[in-house]
Amino acid sequence: LRSGFGEVVYCQGKSNEQLLRIYERLYEQDRNVLGTRASREQYELVKKYFPKVQYDSVSRILSIRSKEQEEYQLIGCIAVCTGGTSDIPVAEEAAQTAEFFGSQVLRIYDVGIAGLHRLLSKLDEIRSANCIIAVAGMEGALGGVIAGLVDKPVIAVPTSIGYGANFGGVSALLTMLNSCAEGLSVVNIDNGFGAGYLATQINRLACNK
Amino acid sequence: LRSGFGEVVYCQGKSNEQLLRIYERLYEQDRNVLGTRASREQYELVKKYFPKVQYDSVSRILSIRSKEQEEYQLIGCIAVCTGGTSDIPVAEEAAQTAEFFGSQVLRIYDVGIAGLHRLLSKLDEIRSANCIIAVAGMEGALGGVIAGLVDKPVIAVPTSIGYGANFGGVSALLTMLNSCAEGLSVVNIDNGFGAGYLATQINRLACNK
Amino acid sequence: LRSGFGEVVYCQGKSNEQLLRIYERLYEQDRNVLGTRASREQYELVKKYFPKVQYDSVSRILSIRSKEQEEYQLIGCIAVCTGGTSDIPVAEEAAQTAEFFGSQVLRIYDVGIAGLHRLLSKLDEIRSANCIIAVAGMEGALGGVIAGLVDKPVIAVPTSIGYGANFGGVSALLTMLNSCAEGLSVVNIDNGFGAGYLATQINRLACNK
Amino acid sequence: LRSGFGEVVYCQGKSNEQLLRIYERLYEQDRNVLGTRASREQYELVKKYFPKVQYDSVSRILSIRSKEQEEYQLIGCIAVCTGGTSDIPVAEEAAQTAEFFGSQVLRIYDVGIAGLHRLLSKLDEIRSANCIIAVAGMEGALGGVIAGLVDKPVIAVPTSIGYGANFGGVSALLTMLNSCAEGLSVVNIDNGFGAGYLATQINRLACNK
Amino acid sequence: LRSGFGEVVYCQGKSNEQLLRIYERLYEQDRNVLGTRASREQYELVKKYFPKVQYDSVSRILSIRSKEQEEYQLIGCIAVCTGGTSDIPVAEEAAQTAEFFGSQVLRIYDVGIAGLHRLLSKLDEIRSANCIIAVAGMEGALGGVIAGLVDKPVIAVPTSIGYGANFGGVSALLTMLNSCAEGLSVVNIDNGFGAGYLATQINRLACNK
Amino acid sequence: LRSGFGEVVYCQGKSNEQLLRIYERLYEQDRNVLGTRASREQYELVKKYFPKVQYDSVSRILSIRSKEQEEYQLIGCIAVCTGGTSDIPVAEEAAQTAEFFGSQVLRIYDVGIAGLHRLLSKLDEIRSANCIIAVAGMEGALGGVIAGLVDKPVIAVPTSIGYGANFGGVSALLTMLNSCAEGLSVVNIDNGFGAGYLATQINRLACNK
Amino acid sequence: LRSGFGEVVYCQGKSNEQLLRIYERLYEQDRNVLGTRASREQYELVKKYFPKVQYDSVSRILSIRSKEQEEYQLIGCIAVCTGGTSDIPVAEEAAQTAEFFGSQVLRIYDVGIAGLHRLLSKLDEIRSANCIIAVAGMEGALGGVIAGLVDKPVIAVPTSIGYGANFGGVSALLTMLNSCAEGLSVVNIDNGFGAGYLATQINRLACNK
Amino acid sequence: LRSGFGEVVYCQGKSNEQLLRIYERLYEQDRNVLGTRASREQYELVKKYFPKVQYDSVSRILSIRSKEQEEYQLIGCIAVCTGGTSDIPVAEEAAQTAEFFGSQVLRIYDVGIAGLHRLLSKLDEIRSANCIIAVAGMEGALGGVIAGLVDKPVIAVPTSIGYGANFGGVSALLTMLNSCAEGLSVVNIDNGFGAGYLATQINRLACNK
Ligand SMILES: Nc1ncnc2c1ncn2[C@@H]1O[C@H](COP(=O)(O)O)[C@@H](O)[C@H]1O
Ligand SMILES: Nc1ncnc2c1ncn2[C@@H]1O[C@H](COP(=O)(O)O)[C@@H](O)[C@H]1O
Ligand SMILES: Nc1ncnc2c1ncn2[C@@H]1O[C@H](COP(=O)(O)O)[C@@H](O)[C@H]1O
Ligand SMILES: Nc1ncnc2c1ncn2[C@@H]1O[C@H](COP(=O)(O)O)[C@@H](O)[C@H]1O
Ligand SMILES: [Mg+2]
Ligand SMILES: [Mg+2]
Ligand SMILES: [Mg+2]
Ligand SMILES: [Mg+2]
Ligand SMILES: [Mg+2]
Ligand SMILES: [Mg+2]
Ligand SMILES: [Mg+2]
Ligand SMILES: [Mg+2]
Repeated sequence: LRSGFGEVVYCQGKSNEQLLRIYERLYEQDRNVLGTRASREQYELVKKYFPKVQYDSVSRILSIRSKEQEEYQLIGCIAVCTGGTSDIPVAEEAAQTAEFFGSQVLRIYDVGIAGLHRLLSKLDEIRSANCIIAVAGMEGALGGVIAGLVDKPVIAVPTSIGYGANFGGVSALLTMLNSCAEGLSVVNIDNGFGAGYLATQINRLACNK
Repeated sequence: LRSGFGEVVYCQGKSNEQLLRIYERLYEQDRNVLGTRASREQYELVKKYFPKVQYDSVSRILSIRSKEQEEYQLIGCIAVCTGGTSDIPVAEEAAQTAEFFGSQVLRIYDVGIAGLHRLLSKLDEIRSANCIIAVAGMEGALGGVIAGLVDKPVIAVPTSIGYGANFGGVSALLTMLNSCAEGLSVVNIDNGFGAGYLATQINRLACNK
Repeated sequence: LRSGFGEVVYCQGKSNEQLLRIYERLYEQDRNVLGTRASREQYELVKKYFPKVQYDSVSRILSIRSKEQEEYQLIGCIAVCTGGTSDIPVAEEAAQTAEFFGSQVLRIYDVGIAGLHRLLSKLDEIRSANCIIAVAGMEGALGGVIAGLVDKPVIAVPTSIGYGANFGGVSALLTMLNSCAEGLSVVNIDNGFGAGYLATQINRLACNK
Repeated sequence: LRSGFGEVVYCQGKSNEQLLRIYERLYEQDRNVLGTRASREQYELVKKYFPKVQYDSVSRILSIRSKEQEEYQLIGCIAVCTGGTSDIPVAEEAAQTAEFFGSQVLRIYDVGIAGLHRLLSKLDEIRSANCIIAVAGMEGALGGVIAGLVDKPVIAVPTSIGYGANFGGVSALLTMLNSCAEGLSVVNIDNGFGAGYLATQINRLACNK
Repeated sequence: LRSGFGEVVYCQGKSNEQLLRIYERLYEQDRNVLGTRASREQYELVKKYFPKVQYDSVSRILSIRSKEQEEYQLIGCIAVCTGGTSDIPVAEEAAQTAEFFGSQVLRIYDVGIAGLHRLLSKLDEIRSANCIIAVAGMEGALGGVIAGLVDKPVIAVPTSIGYGANFGGVSALLTMLNSCAEGLSVVNIDNGFGAGYLATQINRLACNK
Repeated sequence: LRSGFGEVVYCQGKSNEQLLRIYERLYEQDRNVLGTRASREQYELVKKYFPKVQYDSVSRILSIRSKEQEEYQLIGCIAVCTGGTSDIPVAEEAAQTAEFFGSQVLRIYDVGIAGLHRLLSKLDEIRSANCIIAVAGMEGALGGVIAGLVDKPVIAVPTSIGYGANFGGVSALLTMLNSCAEGLSVVNIDNGFGAGYLATQINRLACNK
Repeated sequence: LRSGFGEVVYCQGKSNEQLLRIYERLYEQDRNVLGTRASREQYELVKKYFPKVQYDSVSRILSIRSKEQEEYQLIGCIAVCTGGTSDIPVAEEAAQTAEFFGSQVLRIYDVGIAGLHRLLSKLDEIRSANCIIAVAGMEGALGGVIAGLVDKPVIAVPTSIGYGANFGGVSALLTMLNSCAEGLSVVNIDNGFGAGYLATQINRLACNK
Repeated sequence: LRSGFGEVVYCQGKSNEQLLRIYERLYEQDRNVLGTRASREQYELVKKYFPKVQYDSVSRILSIRSKEQEEYQLIGCIAVCTGGTSDIPVAEEAAQTAEFFGSQVLRIYDVGIAGLHRLLSKLDEIRSANCIIAVAGMEGALGGVIAGLVDKPVIAVPTSIGYGANFGGVSALLTMLNSCAEGLSVVNIDNGFGAGYLATQINRLACNK
């Protein structure tokens, strides 16, 4: 995937010079570039030099697509679910990463377990995906509940949303790691990118690509 | 409750002499005695002197009932639910505590969220109770899921069941503390007694006793 | 309670658009809306569109009452106690949540255990409530002391008040979870809303509503 | 997968009666049964009643296969790697779970990063799998190193092997969660079963089953 | 104190040879020896060679007194209080250490905050001491409550008594460190010896010795 | 001490109104007032109304002395030591608290164990005190080293000075709690006030006041 | 080293007066001064009085060299490696400390294990050094991988780079402490100074200085 | 070092078959074998087949030396110091590892900081070594104190000795990581082997081998 599909840049904490140098090098090679955790300031800086760059302020993804990739068809299906509305930025990082690397994405947001009927009403859609990403903070039970209801791999993303004894996402992380539902694995707190990338690998396997 | 209904003894770690002295004093006063975390050895010791004593090896409760209490009618309703079968000892500590202090108890075991349909099929029964005790280890999501489905107070009891990153019950404890479902509160890990006692207080309020 | 009594919105972290959309939808349905953790800026925003909205800067509650609820009578009694003056914002979140959902509230503030006589002098009042909310930071012993003195359910709310080894409220949380007083349960650090809601459920049971 | 392929039983902590009752029920239905964390005593007990049962003392898996499954062909390929020899029991739990559910497994043990050349010499084999399971304790770097070298999903299983600041597997767990290599996800400490099950889901997607 | 009053030996984990060598050396010098955390086996071993040695199986103190010290008068007063009966071994380690080094000790056991009236009824006695040692596990609130009621230094000793979220004494330790009552300091979990020694230093200052 | 000597106010987090109300009430009674953790803004506010108020920007103590106390003689001796210069604010909180309540204080700063000779050269002075306060961050070994060298009570104050694995003072706190030197006790991280108050209690006992 | 080679000042948190006083004293003695964690403001302040002072904004080192040291030859060789570009500030603190105290430094940056080939291509250079400093955040596996490949002492410096379950550098710290590669030791999170100093001691031993 | 000097085997947890197979393979190659954490049972097993094997029950090292190594001269000097007598097993693991790999070792035991004069009286000896290993549990201050007094690399080994808030060695580990003395690095809790190996690398550099 990596070599064929583009480079990934973790923008947070990079100096302006570092960032420009990286985008320049990749641009010259007509490579795809996916920058994560980019600030609006970084976007405006990069845009001056590479007007083709695109920025999404929710996911904070800063991307350039090569000519080749622009014509790609999105394949298969990944479902991205969230417990609440506050989890959406992390979910969008996952969804847009998956789309950038060629996967079709189904967004199913705000279906947390405090109101279980909303989740249950979306079950058929969720089951149609090759892989599910479950994004949740606070108690983080969404991943386990979905994994108990579907037969496909579920990637759980704990978020740092919450307060008090959520300990910056640790509560959701532990919930997910300890789930007794089958077919669940976990990535780092708020790591939408990692989930989106892994889901794409799985989706591509399912599509035999 | 306390003064009128009997004395509670935490048996674990008490020496034989200490234990006998306590039961003797209470027996002479024809008091109810609820001993928790009692071993079979402690039971056999106490039984020699007070043949009336009763022991349940699952809940590890060692109890003596005064004449007065033997005739009591159980009132109201408390539902005690567990996620798995391993949580049953803690659930029984809760259930039998509640019964000892006069509450009717509905047991609904092994309805964890990995198989959600089993929980959903019991929902009407659960909703009929004045108060629900949700006992779960590992990811501990049961409490939040039930609280999201019913309108009554839910007391969540995390258990130490699990391994690895369950950290002896911390994972379930944090899940429960961070639940965004309304009407949920939490007691210490494996504290079935505390849940059963509190549920009785609530049940009695509901029955206006 | 939920369906009949109104919707709850966790305002913190919501964008302006999200917030307005939610209040608009609920307003149109003449629903009660209880917003928690709202900033003054959010209040001013919402007020422009829904002049009926009310804001309390201590509890940070942003509420709209439906016509129906405005005429409601407050019932029963919930006592809300704090250890210190710094715990008052969390206590007010609890108290005003309880009032919003129809409970009468008795405020007994600054009765921490470092000056026990003040607590003891209020004991009769506290005992008159159907349910007690004990809000305390630092060592957090208030909940256990009250539970030892009264026969009603006590909901302990640890706060993040303190410094050093309070670890953002963990010290008070652990104190409360480990209390050996009977009839105590715990909610998340600083979760006044959760305590107020649960207390209302209990209070309503006691009033047979 | 679940419904079609058999039932999973977590044997640890189950009483003899509970265990027999479960195996009996499933046996009567000619179902596949995969028991994990079974002791030799449990094996001998079950064997008395169901002589067909099989036990592996390294993985501690206690299994019964239905007539149907005995004729199944193993499909695709999952590579199971370990850092050291002490990680083998967890790896075998993963490998035998995957085989039980129909996957072909490639075992590549003792290729930890302290002697990197051994891992590098196996790279072509590893790359041929549809999915890789990386089992490691102590520093737990194996998962990240493999994920950096291959393009397929890597499931990292931290083990509790080590001493001192390994904190029962937490060090390896954190290493794996924080890996910046792409395509990595994590399951609970020592959870070989979970990894084997998930890998099978992925392998089956890749084989279009 | 140290040079003039004897040597302290931490017996736990010492081999038989090490222990005998130490007691021999000190005995020859007619020194006082206070051994803590001694097992009955260690006592029996030492007794064979030094019949004068004394052992208390609750405090696990193994002591030899020099001729000089046997005639000492105990001075001043230290109050040693416990929350429960399970805390008594730690309290006795403190009390007997203090007595060994020449302090008079007042024992006030089982006055935990779950039954506050018992503590309050002993207040005059407690106030008469020069220094108070408060020994408590679980929630550990005893130290802070006493410090709020008396004007003398209070040394709080958290114990490992409890279960679940007591984390081996951490809950009581944090409660005590975060107490907002004045005049409180803390020693290590279960460190009765340290508290008894320090209390003696303070008691001796108060007696101008 | 408390009743006779004045009131203590924890200023941090108090609103202007709360603060003024407290100072006003106490001023009217001609009471001593010791405010801790006061900001310069709070000082300027209080000063407007009570020009007699005094502020020290290092210790952040905001104090008013009654007529009576202004004429007090400082008695006895407390030594206040620090490991580094960054620990001085906490040390000054301790020292000025002790002085406010009538103790003479000896300041011995920057004598941390990385340069042991400096500490050793001050040993006679330190030994002359009735009680020693040892303030240190980072590794926090100062308390144990001093306690090993002197015969008087040592109160150890861990500070939050340091970075990385100091965890906001936890490293120093644990060092101090685990010291095997005799005569050491510990207060909360950065709690100079608590140490100064307790040292005064001990100093007064030594001076028979 | 210390006495002969200069004084070290930890600038962070020092007040302007403290800083100037220290530099003045050392300057008058024509001593080398190495200030770490200095801000640009501190640099500008010190420069006004001691124009010879030098500042590096990446390492944040603020240094003055005595006449004698300016003529020193750098000896031996220390390799400083980083996992990513974000680790460079810590690496530069290490490298410039080592250079200040007379060691030759080889910088090998951005050779983290997610792209192992880059590290392997530099192996000969790394092996030529007397001592290696491995600086890495997130999973922190770099230290162990290098120690497995070389025969010289490796000093691992965990950095606080990362997010979520990196816990401010704890994940990298634990990885490094648990490495099973031989010849590895660890310093505090972000402690480039400590690593650079220790590496110099080793390098000097190797050069027989 | 490794390739030229022998193989290291971590015996703990190895099965009898695994152990014998390893020793056999290495013996046939006339290699040096250093086994750590070996039990007496493992020793007796290996001895039956390889009578040349040697076992030390304090360090738990199980070693076989090749013909070549038996004639080696020990070179240079490493000082191994401990805080208490309970730390000796870990210290011996370090010392005997260093000796096995060819270093001369100076043992300086029981010089903990609670009795500082004992350490100071050994300072000249300690300073004569090329490298110092400081082994300490509980508060773990020994490493920092020595590093402050000598100019050579100090390797600090925290031990799990202690109780309560020592958290199995974490207190000593944190003390050592946070030391502000220069020239100190840390290995895992109880990792005597790692310290002995690293010290040998440094000692050999100093001897130009
Ligand atoms: N949001 C993210 N979370 C975790 N890892 C990331 C993220 N974004 C990028 N990465 C990884 O970081 C690497 C790039 O790091 P860098 O060289 O610092 O830009 C990429 O190859 C990705 O594997
Ligand atoms: N302060 C609070 N603390 C915890 N949960 C809350 C709080 N306020 C609201 N909630 C819960 O959060 C839910 C609303 O979340 P949201 O949909 O994000 O507004 C409500 O149904 C409440 O159960
Ligand atoms: N129970 C205890 N808890 C903490 N420290 C102790 C205890 N008993 C003895 N000590 C300390 O340990 C030292 C003796 O340790 P050791 O030389 O190993 O016997 C004494 O000087 C005391 O300071
Ligand atoms: N960045 C650093 N990290 C850890 N220790 C340091 C650092 N910089 C200086 N030091 C140590 O702190 C001491 C100086 O502290 P101070 O007296 O506060 O300036 C020096 O002797 C060094 O041992
Ligand atoms: Mg599933
Ligand atoms: Mg509900
Ligand atoms: Mg009560
Ligand atoms: Mg990969
Ligand atoms: Mg007091
Ligand atoms: Mg002393
Ligand atoms: Mg090496
Ligand atoms: Mg040194």
